Amino acid sequence: MDERTMPAYRVTGWGGPAQLREVPVPRPGPGQVLVRVAGCGLCRSDLGMMRMPASRGQALGWSMPFTLGHETAGRVAAIGSAAAADLAEGDAVALVAAASCGRCRYCVAGQDNACPASATGRGYGRDGGLAPYVLVGDPRDLVPLGDLAPESAGPLTDAGSTAYHGVRRVRPRLLPEATAVVLGAGGLGGFAVQFLRVLGAARVIAVDVSADRRDRAVELGAHEALDGVDESTVEALRERTGGAGADAVLDFVGTDVTIGCGLGALAPGGAFGLVGSAGGGLRGNWFSGLPRDGEVFTFQGSDISDTRAVVALARSGMISNRVETFALEDVGEAYRRLAEGSVPGRAVVNP
Amino acid sequence: MDERTMPAYRVTGWGGPAQLREVPVPRPGPGQVLVRVAGCGLCRSDLGMMRMPASRGQALGWSMPFTLGHETAGRVAAIGSAAAADLAEGDAVALVAAASCGRCRYCVAGQDNACPASATGRGYGRDGGLAPYVLVGDPRDLVPLGDLAPESAGPLTDAGSTAYHGVRRVRPRLLPEATAVVLGAGGLGGFAVQFLRVLGAARVIAVDVSADRRDRAVELGAHEALDGVDESTVEALRERTGGAGADAVLDFVGTDVTIGCGLGALAPGGAFGLVGSAGGGLRGNWFSGLPRDGEVFTFQGSDISDTRAVVALARSGMISNRVETFALEDVGEAYRRLAEGSVPGRAVVNP
Amino acid sequence: MDERTMPAYRVTGWGGPAQLREVPVPRPGPGQVLVRVAGCGLCRSDLGMMRMPASRGQALGWSMPFTLGHETAGRVAAIGSAAAADLAEGDAVALVAAASCGRCRYCVAGQDNACPASATGRGYGRDGGLAPYVLVGDPRDLVPLGDLAPESAGPLTDAGSTAYHGVRRVRPRLLPEATAVVLGAGGLGGFAVQFLRVLGAARVIAVDVSADRRDRAVELGAHEALDGVDESTVEALRERTGGAGADAVLDFVGTDVTIGCGLGALAPGGAFGLVGSAGGGLRGNWFSGLPRDGEVFTFQGSDISDTRAVVALARSGMISNRVETFALEDVGEAYRRLAEGSVPGRAVVNP
Amino acid sequence: MDERTMPAYRVTGWGGPAQLREVPVPRPGPGQVLVRVAGCGLCRSDLGMMRMPASRGQALGWSMPFTLGHETAGRVAAIGSAAAADLAEGDAVALVAAASCGRCRYCVAGQDNACPASATGRGYGRDGGLAPYVLVGDPRDLVPLGDLAPESAGPLTDAGSTAYHGVRRVRPRLLPEATAVVLGAGGLGGFAVQFLRVLGAARVIAVDVSADRRDRAVELGAHEALDGVDESTVEALRERTGGAGADAVLDFVGTDVTIGCGLGALAPGGAFGLVGSAGGGLRGNWFSGLPRDGEVFTFQGSDISDTRAVVALARSGMISNRVETFALEDVGEAYRRLAEGSVPGRAVVNP
Repeated sequence: MDERTMPAYRVTGWGGPAQLREVPVPRPGPGQVLVRVAGCGLCRSDLGMMRMPASRGQALGWSMPFTLGHETAGRVAAIGSAAAADLAEGDAVALVAAASCGRCRYCVAGQDNACPASATGRGYGRDGGLAPYVLVGDPRDLVPLGDLAPESAGPLTDAGSTAYHGVRRVRPRLLPEATAVVLGAGGLGGFAVQFLRVLGAARVIAVDVSADRRDRAVELGAHEALDGVDESTVEALRERTGGAGADAVLDFVGTDVTIGCGLGALAPGGAFGLVGSAGGGLRGNWFSGLPRDGEVFTFQGSDISDTRAVVALARSGMISNRVETFALEDVGEAYRRLAEGSVPGRAVVNP
Repeated sequence: MDERTMPAYRVTGWGGPAQLREVPVPRPGPGQVLVRVAGCGLCRSDLGMMRMPASRGQALGWSMPFTLGHETAGRVAAIGSAAAADLAEGDAVALVAAASCGRCRYCVAGQDNACPASATGRGYGRDGGLAPYVLVGDPRDLVPLGDLAPESAGPLTDAGSTAYHGVRRVRPRLLPEATAVVLGAGGLGGFAVQFLRVLGAARVIAVDVSADRRDRAVELGAHEALDGVDESTVEALRERTGGAGADAVLDFVGTDVTIGCGLGALAPGGAFGLVGSAGGGLRGNWFSGLPRDGEVFTFQGSDISDTRAVVALARSGMISNRVETFALEDVGEAYRRLAEGSVPGRAVVNP
Repeated sequence: MDERTMPAYRVTGWGGPAQLREVPVPRPGPGQVLVRVAGCGLCRSDLGMMRMPASRGQALGWSMPFTLGHETAGRVAAIGSAAAADLAEGDAVALVAAASCGRCRYCVAGQDNACPASATGRGYGRDGGLAPYVLVGDPRDLVPLGDLAPESAGPLTDAGSTAYHGVRRVRPRLLPEATAVVLGAGGLGGFAVQFLRVLGAARVIAVDVSADRRDRAVELGAHEALDGVDESTVEALRERTGGAGADAVLDFVGTDVTIGCGLGALAPGGAFGLVGSAGGGLRGNWFSGLPRDGEVFTFQGSDISDTRAVVALARSGMISNRVETFALEDVGEAYRRLAEGSVPGRAVVNP
Repeated sequence: MDERTMPAYRVTGWGGPAQLREVPVPRPGPGQVLVRVAGCGLCRSDLGMMRMPASRGQALGWSMPFTLGHETAGRVAAIGSAAAADLAEGDAVALVAAASCGRCRYCVAGQDNACPASATGRGYGRDGGLAPYVLVGDPRDLVPLGDLAPESAGPLTDAGSTAYHGVRRVRPRLLPEATAVVLGAGGLGGFAVQFLRVLGAARVIAVDVSADRRDRAVELGAHEALDGVDESTVEALRERTGGAGADAVLDFVGTDVTIGCGLGALAPGGAFGLVGSAGGGLRGNWFSGLPRDGEVFTFQGSDISDTRAVVALARSGMISNRVETFALEDVGEAYRRLAEGSVPGRAVVNP
């Protein structure tokens, strides 16, 4: 912690590009905590930030430039005055990915994912984890990792926590006679398959176009994996539920096709959760097209409770988290591979 | 109960018309109950049944001809062998409007509105209440009225119960800091305003194009009534919630415009319930257009529990139920006035 | 089904004894179903019924004599007129153990275990399953077994369903950071261990004085099994939860000692469910002795939904159900072994 | 805010006494807020603190001496650096009475009343509101009052919020066919009557020995008020619920007699909430004495969400809050009158 400056992978202006730049190492003020980053996951949403137009970024309240990286874990490096007494230097911690104020009506009710302050956070609009050090303004954002390695824990805070949030929303339905469907079994979908198995007793079916991802889904606990999503998927899912339909569908893709398929495959009273941001919708009549007496929901991000839960599952060995690691100087290459879809699991940069 | 035949207002064939016909008075078999109808409410959905094409009716499993009327209350006239021991001739009862099997996974969990058997019921596909007598196959469908007059109680079972079901879905959100919005303050919407006030502590805002219905909504307990729905409604609702948005919107219209307005006016985490069947939807991107971490739902009908609750509220005087009564021979005229929208409250036929 | 009479194991009068007697084979009336019993589980509560004093039995509304047996499964033998269209002779079915009316406020809400009619049922106050045939008055009480063997399924309906009901009550708490404790890992406790694992992500700890039962609990999925319950158990459980305490304790014993231990081991907000009927309680001050902002509950029996769920779990192979079978003529011997505690798993009579 | 010192009513040592002492006016550090007290409610629990033995106080982690007063409202006087940007000097605010860390598993889930840090708070173990100024360490503890007068708002934060917490626990049961009972209709019980009416549709019955308090309960919305609690109360309550029993009982007394009466009056599935700390319990068998498949709970304090809700109700005029005000120099006299039970409503000191 004697360094004065450090390299950081930053979006340098509206519309990009992102580049490694030398920046000062931050110092924790009162109530703040400085974390030495052990690993920071890369996310497809970062690619959009690199191209963010000024109009949209300013509407969100973002500052430019800023360091990317919102899937961060590391070790406590320095603690500001009056910060949390139960933290010690060297403690392994994960940083909550979603931003929240801690005080509004939503935050005090444990629904911090609905906090109005969530538009700007570490790695999106202010400095994130793609650097050796990152500053945390409120120790509430730190989840203790115990002996879980912070080098690979970063993706638990966003990819893992987002998938968990979706599964938690449908958990009351994951009862013994139920079926749950995951559309798109990539990084988030693979986490969802695991959470569905661990949190409830429903039969789990994954649907994906990739044979590799289908195999991986079955390894992670899916009872079955179907090739799709296409026009035959609704029929196939109805067949596998004795004609009744699925009780929960989580869609990690989000096109017109996957949304139509997910809604079509639901049982009365079922839930459809849209996680994928591909921009699709349902073109037709809602009264006849939405699940009868069921529920449709979408969200972005997760609650602090979600991240605590995901970390607890990883610590107990109940879920697996596959990462491929890169050095900070290779971050550009890592994003290139992420963009082309050739990273199995999650890419993590170890600065 | 010595009559052999009785007049009944029946759909006489696919595509109509509906006419008064003389039919045999039914006799209750084992486990069944015969009810002398005191009043049967008319519903806009009846108008569609009068024009039902054979293809659609047969797909629903309907028999033709059948007697219309699914908002029925009356008095027990005869009890079949082995029927419910706690019923006596002369007891005032309301007949549950929604059909259910009583045995499936949904019924035994108290979610009978999701029962697969709900497509065919008294007044839609088999004989209903627009006649002096109606047969009830399972005493589970009878809700005791005590000293509440059965002459006007019929609309509680469908108009009332459907509105209650929607309010019950959003009830956990009706907390002191919350706002609930009713789009369309006609028959069902007027019931919804009352239930929202009685079941929770949210501020209630009604929106309607009709000044009469707005006045009525305020009489029934709405804190405020806005002229709309139009392009200014989202802004007006946001203003009245300090910019935060509404926590629950129930849409009793269901056009593209009302759905768009309802979604636009929601707070993060809010619920949008679609009750009106006008066939609208949301044209755009769901990921950005649905309420963040909220809930969208639609349904038709209600659970037996809903009807019990509505009857209990009416018995205790906590809600009002405005009806205009017609004789059975004037039923054609009553439907004409219903179709043109000139019945304030609910039209009830007293056979 | 040509038999006119059959042997049945009956309580012959208030205060007993129970004996095999020849009785007429019942015939199904309208709406009723006759079931050929394939297996009927024995329950410790039967032993109490054999000694039931007239005053208490009459207060419950029981008829004397009656055939024992409330854990019954078998095959449909004959269907009365107007009974359920989806049943066929030969179908394997389990009979719901708890009695309910199907019509009251509780039943229509899916809370049939609270139905006032639950005091008298098949095997307790009217004829049960310890005979070749048993009559079912309402097909709602039949849960389809598919290809699950009815010979051993009986205990799922009471031992299994009661344990499931308790686990279902605490299920919202079975989240990743949580710990659940089972006090008494015998028949019901062994089921509870399995349900806790299948329905949630909590760490599961079983406590029992018997080394055999502790071993069995670990086989069934408990993460750990402790010797107890005694004065060291609270301390041991607190240690294993990092000092925080357990989030849910299910007590299948029910003495002062187990109740005191269970309450003492709870975390703030935790739930204590009393299933065992040993008659214990908490002697002291409730304000300081009950879990802070938690929940204490007790119950007897289960809902139809619980039995459906347990059957679904058994059909999918997610739980195991160990039974030892006896012939009907050996039923006296079987009860003797049950009374002395020497039946591992559950005793089932195959008439 | 130029004062250097101020009078404060302090517990001066273990075992007391409490006295007015001159102490320094605190200065807000980073992240802290100083509030000018407009009114601070007195609570019976303060009387216990004045006599707190060292052993118990030290076990709770309390510091001695400290200023009493945990029902505080006032106006923001000074804001430390980095404290909440949405606060301004002069804003009227209420101070959350319960202490919590904001970071633990309970706090981030909105269950801050279960936070392990709740044993020590403003007015119990550290400096509270019986002084012209009080320091707030985390702006999360401040609830904006808008134009509600802070002079009388203090009791909303403890007497009001505690009652609200109990009502919120039973709120899902406050449906149209239900009955809720309040045992003890004093300060907290009077709040409970109001919350029960505002949050649900249950019939509300208050029971109290005092005719004045019964009259007041009816004024506040109780449908009926009974003289009691005594041996006839169970019978009277059963009669008024058609024999079915009550769905929720909140006991603001907490003796053996009130607890026994509350449990005896419950319907199957009902909830009994113990709020009063008189030290009673249930002497007998829990398996037969607790409500069948219902719920028993107790708690102390409330969540931040509760206080926000109570303040929102007071701001909207949906509840009333009766206070009698005293000057700071008369605080001793005010406690004397509180101890003898001669303050109707709540005593508030305006320093």
